[in-house]
Amino acid sequence: MSTIGIIAEFNPFHNGHLHLINKCKELTGADKCIVIMSGDFVQRGAPALTDKFTRAKMALSCGADLVLELPVYYSTGSAEFFAKGAVSILDKTGAVDYLCFGSECGDIDSINAIAEILNKEPNAYKDTLAKELKKGVSFASAREKALLTVFEEDSFIKKNKLKITKTKLKEIISSPNNILAIEYVRALKTFKSKIKPFTVKREGEEYKSEVLSEIPSAAAIRSAIFDTASPKELKNMLKRSIPKGALDILLSNDTGIVSTDDFSDIMQFKLLKDAQKGFEEYVDVTQDISNKILKNLDSYESFENFCMKIKSKDITYSRISRCLIHILLDIKKENIADYVEDDYTGYIRILGQKASSKDLLSAFKKNSMLPVLNRLKDAPNVLNPLQMRLFEEGLYAGRVYNIVNTQGYENEYRLKPVIM
Amino acid sequence: MSTIGIIAEFNPFHNGHLHLINKCKELTGADKCIVIMSGDFVQRGAPALTDKFTRAKMALSCGADLVLELPVYYSTGSAEFFAKGAVSILDKTGAVDYLCFGSECGDIDSINAIAEILNKEPNAYKDTLAKELKKGVSFASAREKALLTVFEEDSFIKKNKLKITKTKLKEIISSPNNILAIEYVRALKTFKSKIKPFTVKREGEEYKSEVLSEIPSAAAIRSAIFDTASPKELKNMLKRSIPKGALDILLSNDTGIVSTDDFSDIMQFKLLKDAQKGFEEYVDVTQDISNKILKNLDSYESFENFCMKIKSKDITYSRISRCLIHILLDIKKENIADYVEDDYTGYIRILGQKASSKDLLSAFKKNSMLPVLNRLKDAPNVLNPLQMRLFEEGLYAGRVYNIVNTQGYENEYRLKPVIM
Repeated sequence: MSTIGIIAEFNPFHNGHLHLINKCKELTGADKCIVIMSGDFVQRGAPALTDKFTRAKMALSCGADLVLELPVYYSTGSAEFFAKGAVSILDKTGAVDYLCFGSECGDIDSINAIAEILNKEPNAYKDTLAKELKKGVSFASAREKALLTVFEEDSFIKKNKLKITKTKLKEIISSPNNILAIEYVRALKTFKSKIKPFTVKREGEEYKSEVLSEIPSAAAIRSAIFDTASPKELKNMLKRSIPKGALDILLSNDTGIVSTDDFSDIMQFKLLKDAQKGFEEYVDVTQDISNKILKNLDSYESFENFCMKIKSKDITYSRISRCLIHILLDIKKENIADYVEDDYTGYIRILGQKASSKDLLSAFKKNSMLPVLNRLKDAPNVLNPLQMRLFEEGLYAGRVYNIVNTQGYENEYRLKPVIM
Repeated sequence: MSTIGIIAEFNPFHNGHLHLINKCKELTGADKCIVIMSGDFVQRGAPALTDKFTRAKMALSCGADLVLELPVYYSTGSAEFFAKGAVSILDKTGAVDYLCFGSECGDIDSINAIAEILNKEPNAYKDTLAKELKKGVSFASAREKALLTVFEEDSFIKKNKLKITKTKLKEIISSPNNILAIEYVRALKTFKSKIKPFTVKREGEEYKSEVLSEIPSAAAIRSAIFDTASPKELKNMLKRSIPKGALDILLSNDTGIVSTDDFSDIMQFKLLKDAQKGFEEYVDVTQDISNKILKNLDSYESFENFCMKIKSKDITYSRISRCLIHILLDIKKENIADYVEDDYTGYIRILGQKASSKDLLSAFKKNSMLPVLNRLKDAPNVLNPLQMRLFEEGLYAGRVYNIVNTQGYENEYRLKPVIM
C-alpha cells in the first residue's frame, strides 16, 4: 500500500481538486489519499464558506480516504506556518509516501531548487536580500532579486546542480500555488522528511479567476454562491464545476453558508474590546498594523470594508484579513512561538474517514509519532498539555464560527466522526 | 428660580413623561427641569430603543431644560444602584430643589414611611426578614412580610408617626414605579439630601400594558415600533401617544432603532470568550447564574431566547438580561464597589441643553460638588481617576451600542453637545 498526502482547504471542493487527487494517485501508483484540511478558518484570513465537517464530507465523496484537521494556528498562518504545520503533521503520521500538490509550473526540479536556496540561504542570497530590503522595497521583490543573484552565481549553481532562467524564476515565484509548493518542499527539507514531493501542473482557471469553467477557481465558486439568489439556478451553474456527490453535500439543506461580513459586528466588538491594549500580541500584527487599526476604528463599517481601508501598497488585503482573524480568535505570537519551539505541535484529529480506511488507521497506530484523536472526549487522556491547548484553541474557533453559521454543528464533543 | 429633578430613561419619551414634567413644574411652582437619563443601556438590562442623544433631544423638545447622562454602572444597575447613582448626582449638582417621580400610589407619605423602615431596619424588620428568607421564600415576599410586621408593631409606628394598612402596603410595594420611588426616597435619606421628594400619581396604562393609549407604557410604544412595518402607519399609531416634537425626532431618518436581539451574535461571542473563567466577576451574576449560563451556552440561539432559557421562578427575565448586559459591557463587581465606596462616583455629563439653560449651568459652577463635563476632551483635566474610569466605561458602552446602531453617532469626542 502506498499513500499520497494532500494539504487542502477545499473551500469548496471542485473538479480541480478531484483532478489533483486522481492524477496523483494514478501517477504515483498510490491507492490511498490522506488530506490535511483547514478547519473553519482558512489561510487567506477568512471564515470558510461551509463548516469543516461539510467540507470533509465533500472530499470523502470524491476520492479522499481520510481527512484530518489542520489546527487553526497553522490553517490561518502565513504560507510558511501553514506549510510547516501541515507538513509536520503529515510527516509524523508515518503513513504518507508522497506529498502531492498542484503548481502553476508543474516542475518539481525548479521548486526543489528554489526551496534549497531559501533554506540554505547562501551568502549571495542573504547579502542581496538585506541590501534590497534596506532600499525599502517589498519583501517579495527583495527575495526575487536575491534568488536571481544566486542563480546567476556560477559556483553555487554548479555545486548544487541548480538551473533556472531569470524569466522562468520570475514566473514561478509570482504564482500563488508555486509559492505554497516551495514552502511545502522547504518544510519537507527542514523536517528531513522521507515523504517525496510530487507536483502536477494546475489545470483550468487561474487562482483568482471569476470564470466558472470545468476546472474553476474556488473564488469563482464562492462568488457564484454569494451572488446567485435561486438555489436551482445555483445548482445549474455549479454542476459543471463541482463533482455531483460533492455538490449535493454543498447544497443540502443542513449546510450553512458563511461570509466574512457575517462576522462584521463580532469583529468590531473584539477590536473595541482590545483597543486600549493594542493588537501587537496577535500573530502577524505589527506595530504599524496595530496603529492603523486603532486609527481607523471609528469609521469601521464592515469586516471587508475595514480590510480595504487598512490595506496599502506594502500590506495586502489577505495580510490584514489574516491579522483580523487572529485578533478575533485570540491567536497569539506567544503561543505560536511555543508550538514552533515544540517542533510544530500537532495531533491527528480525524474529521472524517471512509469506512474502508481502517488500514490507514492501523498504520497510524503502528507508526505515528502523534496521538490520534478519534473521540474528542479522549483528548485530555491522549494529548499532552501543549497539544491540548492547541486543540482547545481549535474548538474555540469552531464555536466562534458557529455563532454566525446558524446551520452549523453545535458542540463538537457531541458529534460522531464522519464516516462515509 | 426653583428646579425639579427627574430620573428617567425616556425609552422612548411619551405623553406620560410630558404629563409628569408639566404637572410637577406646575405643582411645585418650579420653572426649570433637570433630567438625569440612562445612556444607551437601560435598567431592565437592555439596549435603549434609540441612542442617548436622540432621547435627550426628545426630552428637550418637551419641557426638559437640561439632560445629564446617568453613568452606565448605575443605569443598568438594580433599582437600588440605579436610584442611588442618579440621586447622588442630582444632589451633588446643588441645583435641584425637588426630586419628582411618578408612582402608582401617588402618596408621598406612604413612600416616605416605607423608605424610613427600609433604611432604619428596626429589629422587628430585621428579624422577620431573616426568618422568612430562611424559609426559602423570595426576597420580595420576605421583605413584604417584614415591613408588615413593623407597621403592625405599635411602638415603632407611634414613635415615627407611620401609618399604613396591610392591603395598601401590599399594593404599594408590588408596583414597579412605587418600588423605584421608595428607592429614590431611601437614597435622599441616605445622602441627607436637602432635595424634597415629590410624587404625582401615574396616569394612563400600566407599566407593561400593550395598549397604545394617550398615556401609554413605553413598552407598548416599543412593541408598536418593532411590529409595524410601514413608517406611515407607525406615525399614525404613535401620534396619540407621543408629543409631536418628540415623535418627529424619533421617526426622523437619522435615528437608528435598536433591539436586544441585534446584540445576539456579539453577546454569544462575549459569553464564549469568558466561558473558561466563568461570569461571577460581573455585577448581579451569582455562582448559580454563572453556572446556568455555562450549562446552556451550547444551545444559545438569541439574546432574548437565552434569557427565557435561563430565567426561573426565583430569577426574573430582567435580572438575567441585566446580568448579560453587565457581561457584555464588562461591568464588574470590583469596580462598582469602588464607586459605592467613593460615595457613588459621579460627574455632570451634559447630553443636551436648552439654549435658555445658561443660568442652570451658572448654578452648577457656583454650587456643584461634581466636575462639569461639557466638552469631552476636557475629561482628563476635570475628572479624577475614578471619575475618569467611570466615564470611559460609559464611552465604551456607547461604542458597543453603536456597533449595531448603524445610524448612531460614531465618536462621542467629535460630537458637539445637543443645544435646542
